[in-house]
Parts: sequence; structure tokens; C-alpha cells
Amino acid sequence: MNSSERAAVLAEALPYIKAFAGKTVVVKYDGNAITSQELREALISDLVLLSLVGVHMVVVHGDEGEVDTIIDRLRGSHTSTADGSSEQAEAKGMVLAGKINKELTSLINAAGGKAVGISGLDGSLFLAEEINPALITDLIQSGYIPVVAALAQGQEKGSSQLLDANDTASRLAVTLKAAKLILLSNTVGICYNEADDQTLISELRLSVVGRLLRSRVIAGERAKMVDCCVQAIRRGVPRAHILDGRVSHSIIVEMLTDSGIGTMILQDYEGGE
Amino acid sequence: MNSSERAAVLAEALPYIKAFAGKTVVVKYDGNAITSQELREALISDLVLLSLVGVHMVVVHGDEGEVDTIIDRLRGSHTSTADGSSEQAEAKGMVLAGKINKELTSLINAAGGKAVGISGLDGSLFLAEEINPALITDLIQSGYIPVVAALAQGQEKGSSQLLDANDTASRLAVTLKAAKLILLSNTVGICYNEADDQTLISELRLSVVGRLLRSRVIAGERAKMVDCCVQAIRRGVPRAHILDGRVSHSIIVEMLTDSGIGTMILQDYEGGE
Amino acid sequence: MNSSERAAVLAEALPYIKAFAGKTVVVKYDGNAITSQELREALISDLVLLSLVGVHMVVVHGDEGEVDTIIDRLRGSHTSTADGSSEQAEAKGMVLAGKINKELTSLINAAGGKAVGISGLDGSLFLAEEINPALITDLIQSGYIPVVAALAQGQEKGSSQLLDANDTASRLAVTLKAAKLILLSNTVGICYNEADDQTLISELRLSVVGRLLRSRVIAGERAKMVDCCVQAIRRGVPRAHILDGRVSHSIIVEMLTDSGIGTMILQDYEGGE
Amino acid sequence: MNSSERAAVLAEALPYIKAFAGKTVVVKYDGNAITSQELREALISDLVLLSLVGVHMVVVHGDEGEVDTIIDRLRGSHTSTADGSSEQAEAKGMVLAGKINKELTSLINAAGGKAVGISGLDGSLFLAEEINPALITDLIQSGYIPVVAALAQGQEKGSSQLLDANDTASRLAVTLKAAKLILLSNTVGICYNEADDQTLISELRLSVVGRLLRSRVIAGERAKMVDCCVQAIRRGVPRAHILDGRVSHSIIVEMLTDSGIGTMILQDYEGGE
Amino acid sequence: MNSSERAAVLAEALPYIKAFAGKTVVVKYDGNAITSQELREALISDLVLLSLVGVHMVVVHGDEGEVDTIIDRLRGSHTSTADGSSEQAEAKGMVLAGKINKELTSLINAAGGKAVGISGLDGSLFLAEEINPALITDLIQSGYIPVVAALAQGQEKGSSQLLDANDTASRLAVTLKAAKLILLSNTVGICYNEADDQTLISELRLSVVGRLLRSRVIAGERAKMVDCCVQAIRRGVPRAHILDGRVSHSIIVEMLTDSGIGTMILQDYEGGE
Amino acid sequence: MNSSERAAVLAEALPYIKAFAGKTVVVKYDGNAITSQELREALISDLVLLSLVGVHMVVVHGDEGEVDTIIDRLRGSHTSTADGSSEQAEAKGMVLAGKINKELTSLINAAGGKAVGISGLDGSLFLAEEINPALITDLIQSGYIPVVAALAQGQEKGSSQLLDANDTASRLAVTLKAAKLILLSNTVGICYNEADDQTLISELRLSVVGRLLRSRVIAGERAKMVDCCVQAIRRGVPRAHILDGRVSHSIIVEMLTDSGIGTMILQDYEGGE
Repeated sequence: MNSSERAAVLAEALPYIKAFAGKTVVVKYDGNAITSQELREALISDLVLLSLVGVHMVVVHGDEGEVDTIIDRLRGSHTSTADGSSEQAEAKGMVLAGKINKELTSLINAAGGKAVGISGLDGSLFLAEEINPALITDLIQSGYIPVVAALAQGQEKGSSQLLDANDTASRLAVTLKAAKLILLSNTVGICYNEADDQTLISELRLSVVGRLLRSRVIAGERAKMVDCCVQAIRRGVPRAHILDGRVSHSIIVEMLTDSGIGTMILQDYEGGE
Repeated sequence: MNSSERAAVLAEALPYIKAFAGKTVVVKYDGNAITSQELREALISDLVLLSLVGVHMVVVHGDEGEVDTIIDRLRGSHTSTADGSSEQAEAKGMVLAGKINKELTSLINAAGGKAVGISGLDGSLFLAEEINPALITDLIQSGYIPVVAALAQGQEKGSSQLLDANDTASRLAVTLKAAKLILLSNTVGICYNEADDQTLISELRLSVVGRLLRSRVIAGERAKMVDCCVQAIRRGVPRAHILDGRVSHSIIVEMLTDSGIGTMILQDYEGGE
Repeated sequence: MNSSERAAVLAEALPYIKAFAGKTVVVKYDGNAITSQELREALISDLVLLSLVGVHMVVVHGDEGEVDTIIDRLRGSHTSTADGSSEQAEAKGMVLAGKINKELTSLINAAGGKAVGISGLDGSLFLAEEINPALITDLIQSGYIPVVAALAQGQEKGSSQLLDANDTASRLAVTLKAAKLILLSNTVGICYNEADDQTLISELRLSVVGRLLRSRVIAGERAKMVDCCVQAIRRGVPRAHILDGRVSHSIIVEMLTDSGIGTMILQDYEGGE
Repeated sequence: MNSSERAAVLAEALPYIKAFAGKTVVVKYDGNAITSQELREALISDLVLLSLVGVHMVVVHGDEGEVDTIIDRLRGSHTSTADGSSEQAEAKGMVLAGKINKELTSLINAAGGKAVGISGLDGSLFLAEEINPALITDLIQSGYIPVVAALAQGQEKGSSQLLDANDTASRLAVTLKAAKLILLSNTVGICYNEADDQTLISELRLSVVGRLLRSRVIAGERAKMVDCCVQAIRRGVPRAHILDGRVSHSIIVEMLTDSGIGTMILQDYEGGE
Repeated sequence: MNSSERAAVLAEALPYIKAFAGKTVVVKYDGNAITSQELREALISDLVLLSLVGVHMVVVHGDEGEVDTIIDRLRGSHTSTADGSSEQAEAKGMVLAGKINKELTSLINAAGGKAVGISGLDGSLFLAEEINPALITDLIQSGYIPVVAALAQGQEKGSSQLLDANDTASRLAVTLKAAKLILLSNTVGICYNEADDQTLISELRLSVVGRLLRSRVIAGERAKMVDCCVQAIRRGVPRAHILDGRVSHSIIVEMLTDSGIGTMILQDYEGGE
Repeated sequence: MNSSERAAVLAEALPYIKAFAGKTVVVKYDGNAITSQELREALISDLVLLSLVGVHMVVVHGDEGEVDTIIDRLRGSHTSTADGSSEQAEAKGMVLAGKINKELTSLINAAGGKAVGISGLDGSLFLAEEINPALITDLIQSGYIPVVAALAQGQEKGSSQLLDANDTASRLAVTLKAAKLILLSNTVGICYNEADDQTLISELRLSVVGRLLRSRVIAGERAKMVDCCVQAIRRGVPRAHILDGRVSHSIIVEMLTDSGIGTMILQDYEGGE
């Protein structure tokens, strides 16, 4: 690529940078999609860069299978964790907050970002059904990237319980009045025909979503993700995206170039980006 | 106790409250001393109350045997953890940051405080030998009680390593220009005769400490704690205390009444409190 | 009292300290009740301490017999001052602002407080029926304890007139949006039977007050004080208290312990403290 | 006077207004000079006006004979007050702070200024030989004109002692880093021949002052005033003035027109105004 | 004029100075009236002085014949400029912004003011029919005197067009919520009989203006000026003045003395100044 | 170019954006190089974009032949302007400030920037040999792009004189503590052999510059530009660049990509960019 092409890309990106400066973007990390070291580094680079130009990035992560693997490795045996005992839940919470969260935080810091790993137990962030965002807004104001483990205070004093990460990200986006909710996933986005990536729906209006869910064109895991997006849009988040976490730099491409990728969900009456 | 006695206690306490307002106090928590539910609640009440009247409380905790117990319980077997393999270290870090830290944080929040559990991996707090206190000062400024797991970033990207909690508390106190370092312990303080609590030394000047260490009057674990205090005093912390964590409300008694308890270590040329 | 009892008193007090921090409390001083040197010192100690922990204390005082005594002493004769001539009024104003006010101010300063003696003639504080609180709020913001002589600008340029101190305190509490009005008096509080201190009414709701006044259960001087409290409550001050100035540290006991003393007057629909 | 002459006066004044904006000027009031109602009103008008355009005016007053008159009037007899008993001193302090100070304050407020009457007993303003100007600077910052009674805390708790007003004004000017010290007096200024106003010295350099004092050209009361000016100049006040209080608007003429009046005392090496 | 007369003028001026402090006054400069060096210097002195005492002065100027003279001088010939070609307009804009504006700015700066010459092309000040006052308010906030050439962006990119200076001043006064609009002119003001200066109307109410315009008592150039004043008053500017630019210091006489000059236009229901 | 290539360009640019955020960059515009409409639009786009992401852009321009052309066109004849009469200088200043400056300003505003055209006559910017940068820093703080005509106040009141634009830009960069000085020119940069663009020197250390100037490898106009860069570097500007104004987007390529263009001049002991 020559200098003039580079200049063109930059000229295209800069208005977006300006538009998002000072805005909050909530990203749901997906351990199932971001499986290679390379993908993870690209993602972390995107987070750090966007943070550097003034976008307030908030990362949410939950348990996508990694937790069981780690517990098994720790135990030295492949045991079923299906029993759902309170001890199991405790172990899972510990792995989420003590391992996955700290690792992600630590990698962002190593890449030059300023990340702080927290969970719903810190600063009374998630209390029962309510979100108390003061800790996150305080961290954002001080320039940190909060990395939030989807974990809430449990019923018993000092105990914890796991939350759904997509739902948590959606609710955080609403509470933080985010400009954007991005759910990373291991799909190209929402397709008319799940088996055919060519049928990707780039832009999905709220009024269409209901029909597609009722007719079960969107179903299963994808329906859950779409629902989280719908909740966010209905409660004031302008844009929600389902992006392919398996594509390198998908966040930066979506946010800073004219070519959107994945599926964007938005209100009926607003124009696309 | 009648009203006038209560008034007398308050009259005695208020100047201390004023003196510590806006000052930072670093407390090293000790899981071995604070074994009962009642002691833990008294301690948490002290932390919350001091925080409420404007003292910036910072709590540091490490691994005092609890970690192994938890790992064993998780594994369902009592196995030696002495091999020190990197996997062991990883498991320990996870328990520290994901369980002990979150539990303490969660209990403080439940008692009406505003605690945030962090570790050396957050905000690049502990980098190699250096402490970068920005995250803690940011949290303090926003009114939070940082609960710090004595854990640093490891050599490998994303890995972690355990730190000594007394030493970490001492170094944090220096970096934060704390007014006080309090090491909770399961002893009454430093005694001339370790076996006889009646020989407790209430006030220990720096010049005396060297002699007592060389003559091995102070030795073993207690020598290590004293050394952490000495380092803090030498680098500018005005007062360091070794308090009995097994005594209910020992922090509040030390900080807000005329009757100090435990051992206070201070410069040669300064007066006692 | 042992350490653990002291800790209990402090644990009880600290939430009150927090609750009153940054709030304004107006105290009407009573020269008839505070007759001994010891009582006066205890009161001044309370004012200074509460000010130290961040409560904005405002003291109001008037003429409770002392003024005549001073004028008589000055004149070297015991003359009737009942004629109420303008010269008499002038002399009284001078004694109030130039002697009683300055003495109180000076004693608070000597005890480590930061007091400023003012009267209604300063900063156009009391203009006719209006209160212009800018000077008091300015002093409070700068950390001073305003000691206010109940004296207003007179009809003639440069002249002054005496005000009722209870009424002035009540009106100031309203204007300053105080959290509390405290009228010190030489009674235990309001009693069902004025002759029997055992019949003290600890808590008096607005709806009950009217009945007690109409039935003349509360009458005379006490009725005037109660009326000042009622006016303050009706116009937004949450709590008004009639405390016994003859009891040492009565303010601190009322404000920082669970055991209220004297009579507290409050709205019908609110809970007690 | 026609419009163009008025414009010329204003054009002349405005640079002075600008030059003094935000600066502090200490004025010693003189009850012996300002004897008529008209003079007093002109003076108060000057103070208010200068304050309105942003000059920080501070007024100091003491006892110039009025105190005795008032005490006598109060007593209904003309008694000698020469005994200097402590009771006498107390009475004088009371008159100063409670009558003269309040009257002056009240008149300034009536003329549209914002005055606060204080004395050395307020805010620990004068402690022994030291001046603690925080209260005055706080009042100035809030836009008030402090009217200061030359009265300090006495040896005994709660007692007071009279200070020399010229000396107090001089010391206040130094502490407040005033731009100007103005001593009002009942003379035209300093003259070579005290009996002949035509011999007025308009400008007096420090080096000349010593000679004139030693040769007793300047003596008596005038020497005391000159000495107060000299102390102020030596300790950093740029200009000190002895003005005739019997001339209407003498302050405004001195400060806002090219034609200085009275005697100005200044450093050797600096130019006149 | 003696000192006491000077003091009287100042005493009269100071309340006006206070009243206008922090307020904005828009002055339309008139090159036809201010023909001598002396008049120009008096005007500039007025602007600088009013700016020094805190009035936010904004100067607007247009083309009153000077532009043609300059172009002719530049061309070395006296050519008709009546053709109104776009090249002509361009030349005029250039002279306005590059010569008249810079000269005025430069003279104010030389007299000790802080002036910045701008035009409607700077900071998108005049866009089509809209005024975007951010640049002027920013300059005012930083203490500058904006000198505004009545020039707007033209239809073509980079081109400019001349505006009517009276109308521009009027609209700026409205947008800036000015306290006063002053149109300098080469008349004594508005007269009942244009030929007789003795018939000057000092104060003109809105309701009267309409009648005088309809009956053509006010006509021609003067009607245009009056109309600009009327627009300003109707849209919230409290006072509009037509002053004689040929009278030295007319602005300062109008603004800072009791004797207004020229014609003041104001609402029906408000009192005069 | 595909998405991943775009992402790569952005990833490369963002650290530079961050590094320059809040920094000042002074650009000397060159009318001889930027001859086409397209080049001018690309340059203006670069200025606006850099301004949007927080770089404080300051543009300096002078007279590069355009002035004479405009004057000739205005005069309708091709006359020699070599006589250098004061009238000529005046005409030139007028064209610079009233035409070239306003045009550039107007174009930046039309492209969405916030530009203000000023000259050395505004805000006393250039006084004799001194630069008083308050006006520029005020404008920068308010978010404007100052477009500065290289024009200073002349000897006579109200007159002006032309300055060398390269030199003015260099001095402004020093005074504003700019991070970068960029001189646009109609050359590729500095070459060993002026006739051969292939001999371009990308990076030039101060110690080498002297040698190249003395040996006349760099001479003529280029020597003057290099000298302006050297002066800036010596007085604290970290980087100075001579860029080819004839290359589209040369500023953005230099500032936001890894591939520098033109010649960069820097200190001996510092690393390249």
C-alpha cells in the first residue's frame, strides 16, 4: 500500500475517531471465538488503540467453557461439573475472577493499556437485579479500561454467582449510556440461513427482529444474543453489533472504517451508520 | 456506661479522627489471626467506620495457609503443595485474587463500605520491583477502599506470582506516603520474651530495633514483620504498628483512643503518639 | 472503662459523625443555664470538636440577664433598666456585641476552634424581618464558627435593636437549611408536669404540640421555646431540640450517641432519630 | 462642569481604577477628624465606591476619645477614666467592638457596601504580637469590607486589650501585602513648620524621614504616625499616606486623580505616583 | 477644576462602571464621523478605558466611503466603482479586512488595549443569515476587544460579501445579549427637525418610533439607523443609542455620566437611564 | 484495499494520533507549491482532521508572489512593484491580511474546521522582535486553528510590515513550544544534489547541517529554510520538517504513518521518529 492509499484510509477513519471520542463502548469478549494467540493480540491491540484515542472501552467476559477446562486441569481429572452444587459455583466464580479476568487484564496492561479487572462483587457493582455503575464510571474517568467478570454477589454473605455475559454487557451498555454494544461471537453475524454465511444481514431494524424471531429464522444461541441487543436498543443504546470474533481486528474495522462488518441492530426510525 | 462516660470517650476520639482525616493507612490483613466470624465482622466494621470519617484505608492480603486449604477442598484431596510448580503458583494466584480477595471485598461492601478488590495485575500496579500506585490513588480519590491481593505479574505474559503480604503492605505504605502501616498478626505484638505477653514492648525506636534483632531477642516471623515496619519508617512512614488481630476492634482502639495497643515502631527522634 | 467498651462507643458514634458531616447545626447558647466555668468549657469543647469533624456549627446568643448585670457593674449602681429608653437599648446592644459575643468568640478560639463574632449589623445579616445569610454561609464555607449576637439594625441609621435569641436561632436554622436546631435551656426539656423532671417528653410530634399548647400543659417560657422549634420544623428543619444546658456535654451526647436527651420535636410522619 | 470636562476627569481616573483593582488598601479611620455627618458620609461613599470597582478596602479604627465620652454618657457622670483598671479596659473594649465598630459597619452597609465588623478576638486575628490574617483575607475574597476594631485578646481567657490603631493599620497593611496604607488624621499632612499648612511636604522619601525625626522637625503625634508609615514602607508596602480626614472625599481624590493630597511616604529609589 | 469637583464626577461615574462591569456593549464605528486624528484617539481611549474597567466592548465597522478612496489611491486613478462586479466586491472586502480593520485593531493595541481584528469569515462568525457568536464570546472571555469587519462568507467558496455595518452591529448586539448598542454617526442624534439640532430627541420610546417613521419625521439614513436600533430593542437589547461621533469622548460621556447625549431608544414600559 | 489492510493502517496511525494529541504543530503554508484546487483541498482536509483528533494546528503564511499578482489584477496593469515604497508595503499587507488570509481561513471553516485569521497586528502578537503568543494560545485553548499572516506592526502608528513566513513560523514554533515545525515547500526536501530528487536526505542531524551549509551543498532558498529549522531545533522544538507541498496529504503521511517523507531535521543526540 502506498502513502496516498494510507492517507485515504486515515482520512476516512478520523471522523469516526472524533465521533467516538469520549463515548463509551461495551464489548462482550468471547473465549470460544478468540482461540488463537494472534486473534487475542489483535483484539487487545484494538482495545488499547481505541482507548488511546479517547473511546471509553468496557470489556465484559463470562464463562464460555474455559472455566470447566481450568477446573479440570486443576483437579487433574475430567469430572462432570453438571451437578451445579454451590461448591461448583464457587469454584467457577473463583476461576472467572481469579484467572480469566486477571489474564485478560494483565495482557491489556502488557500491551500498553490501563486495564483494571473487576467483578460484580467490587464496589457493589451488581446488586441483585440492579447495576450500580459508579465504580465503572469512576474507572473510566480515571482513564482505565474496566474488564468486568460477569459475576454477582450471591445470596449468602461473601458468596458469588455467575451471570450471563451477553446479558450483563447489554445491561451495562444501557446503564452506562454507551454509544455502542458489541457482542463478539463465533459467527459471521446474523444470517437468514444460519448455514450460509452469504445470507448475512448487515443491518437489522427493531421492527424486523420480532418477525425473524417469531418465525424462528433467528433461533438458539443467536436468538439470545439478538435479544440482548434488542434490549439495549430499546433502552437507549443507539447501536448494537454482533461481530465475528474470529476475524482479526473486527472491532476496529467496524468502528473506524466505512465498511461495517457483522450485523448491526438499530431502531426503526434511525439511519444506518 | 452512662452518657457522660460516652461523651468522654468521644471527646477523646475526635481529635484523632480529625488528625487522620484525608490520611492513608495501610492495613495488612491476617487470615491466621482473624479466624472467627465475629473477629472478621469487627475488623470490617472498623475499616468501614474509619473510611466513613475520611481515613483512606488500604487493605493488603496474601496467602496465610488458606489458599492451600481451598485448593485441597477443590481437589477433594489433601495433597502436598510444596513442589512449587508453576501450575501450583497459578492455582494459588487464582485462589488469592478470585476467592479470598473477592470475599473480603464483598463483605466490606455488604457492611456499607465501598471496596474494590484488585491485585498487582490491575492497572500495572506492581511491575517487577516497582510499585505504580496510580490505580490505588485513583480509587482512594473516588472514595473506595482498595483491597489488594499480594500478587504481581509473572515473567510470562498473562501469568502471575505471589508476593509477601507484609512486605507488599510496607512498600505500598511508603509509595502512598501513608500516615500509618498496620500489620495485623496473631501475636500481642513484639515482646522481650516471646513466651510472655507481659513483656510486650509498646514503643520501639529504630535505634533499639537493630540491637534487638542482632541479639536475636526478636527473631523468626516476628523479625520479618519488624523488618517490614523498619523499612517503612526509614522511607518516611511516620508510624508502623504490629497489632493483635485476635483482639476485637484492635484497629479502632489503636487509632481513636489514647490507649495504644500492640507494638508501635517509630523514628528515634520523634515523640510517641 | 476498658478498650473494648471505648471501641463500642466509637462504633456507635461514627455513623452520626458521617451523617452530620457538611450539615449545619444552629445552637442557641443560654447564659442562664451555662453558669459555671466547667459547663462553659464542656460546651465550647463540644462546639470545637463537632466543627473539627466537619459539622457546620452556628451559635446564636442573646441577652439572658447578663447584659443588665454588666451595665450595672459598669455604672457602679444597681439601677432599673426597665425604662426601655433608646439609650438603654443602645447600651444593651453594645454589651451584647462588644462583650458577651466577643468573650464567647474568644473562648472558642482559645480552645482551638475558628470562631468569628458577628451580629445582625454585619453584612446586612438581619434587615428588618428578612435574613440575608450570605455572610454566615461565607464564613461557614471558610471553616469558621459564626457566633451571632441577636441584634439587628435599628430604625435610625447606625442604631441597633435587640432580638429574641430563640426566635433568631429558629429563623437562622430555616434560612441556612440547617439539619438541626438546638435550643439550650435551664430545664431538662419539655415535661408533662413542669415540676416533675420524670415526666420529660423525649419526642414530640407536631400534631401533639398544638394540643399541649392549647391545654396549657406547655406554657410560659417553655411554650415560647417550643413555638420556635415548631416554626423551624414547619419550615423544613428536620429536627429541633430543647436540651439542658446545665448537663455537661449535652450537645455531643445528643448528636453522637444512641441515647438522645432533652426533648426532640419533629414532623408527624417522620421516624425518630 | 461640562461633559467634556467630566470625560477628562474620568479618562484620568480609569487607569488608577485599573491599577488598584484587586489590590488591598488599608485605611485608618479617625474619629477626631471625621466629626461631621457630612464628612462621615463622604468617607463611607468613597469606601463603598472603591470597593465597588474592585479595590479591597480594609478599615481599621481605634479609640480617639469617643470611647470615654460614650462610657461617661452611659454612666451619667463625667468620671475620670485615667485609673486604667482592668475593668476600665474591659469597658473600653466593649465600646470599641460593640458600639463604634458596629456603627461604622452598619453605616457602610446602609450605603450599599458589604461590611463586616470584626476585632482581634475574631478568628484569632491578633495573637500576642502576631497577626493571623486568614479571617480578613477570607472576608476580602468573599467581597466584604472588614472593619477592624484595634482590639486584641488579653492575657486572661476571654479578656481583651486595646491596641494603637495607627500601628495596627500599619502592621495589617504589611501582613496583607497592601498596595497602600492610608492614615486619616486631623492635619493637612506633614509640614516643615507644623503651624503653617503652606509648608506641607507632598512626598517624603525614607532617607529624609530619619533626618526630619532626629532634628525634631516632625515630632509628637505626627512623628508616631510617620513612624507607622515608615514601618510599613520598610516591610514592603509601596506607598503610605497621611491624609486630612477633614477634607471631603480625600481618599478618592488621592487614589483616583493625578492630584495627590496630604503627604505620601515612599522608598528612596522609587518614583512618585 | 478643583479636587472636590473631580471627586464629584468620579462619585457620579463609579456606579455606572459597576453596572456595566461584565456586560457587553456593541459599538458601530463610523469612518465618516471620526475624521480627525484627535477624534479617533479620543474614541480609542474610550474603548480601552471601558475595556480596562471590565466592560466587554465589541467594535463593528463597515465601509463608509473609505474603501473606495483606498482602492482609488491604490489604482492611482479615480474610477467609478459603481459597477458592482464581483471583482469590485472582492477588492472592497480585502480593503475592509486587510486595511481598515487592521488599522483600527493596531491603534487600539498601541493604546494599551487588547484588540483582535476579525470578520465574518473567521470562526464561521456570519453564516448566511445566522450569527454564530462563539468566536466573539471566546475572545471576550479571554479579555480581547473584537474589532469586527462587516464581511460575510460569499456564495462561492473562499469569496466574501460586504454587510451593512449598522445592521450587523444590531444583530450582533442581539446575539451577544449586549446591554447596549451604540451607533456612532455624523449627526447629533435624531431630531424632530433634521435641520435643527435644537430639536434633538433625547429619549425615544418604541411606540413613538413607528409614528415618527410613518409620518416621515425620521427618514433616509437616519431612518435606517433607527430601524437597526428598533430591531435590537425588540429582540432584547435594553438600550440603543445614536451618538455623535464628531463629539470627543461621546461614548464615555454617555456611559459614565448622568448627562446622556444623542438619542436613546428604549422599550415603552421601561424607565430611562 | 481490504478491511484487514485498512485495519493495519489504522493500527499504525493511532499511536501517532495519541502522541500528538494536545501538542502544537506549526505549519508554514506555501502558495507556490499548493497551486491546484485539489492540493489545497487535501491540505485543508489534513489540517481539519488533525485538529479534530486534538492536535493544535497553527498555520503561518506569507507572500509568495500571489500578492503582486493580486495587486496587479486590482490595478488592471502589470506594473513593477520593486520600488518598495511604503504605499506598496501597505498594499501588500492589505492583500496578505485581507485576501490570502481570509480565503484560507474561510476554506478551512467551509471544510468543517474552526479557523480564525489573524496577523501580527492582532493582540499585539508580533511586537518588534518579540512574539507575544497569548492570542494564539487563547485561540488554541478555545479549539480554533489560528491562520497567521506574517505581518507585523510597522514603525508608524497603524502601519504594517511584511515578515518572512518561514522565519515567522520557526519563531512561533519556538514560542509556542510546538512539537513540530513543518515548512511546506515546492521541493521534495533537502537533497545532496539539488537537481536529483533521488539524493533526498530523509534525516538531517544538527551537526551535519553546519557542514552541508558551509560546503554549500545546501544553498539559496533551501539554505534559508534549513536555517529556520535549525533555529527552531536549537531553541527546543523537537522536530522540524521540510515537506513537499506538491504531494497530496503530505502532512498526514508524515505525521500519522511510519513512512516519513521529505527531510526531517533534529538534534544530534536524539533518535529519529
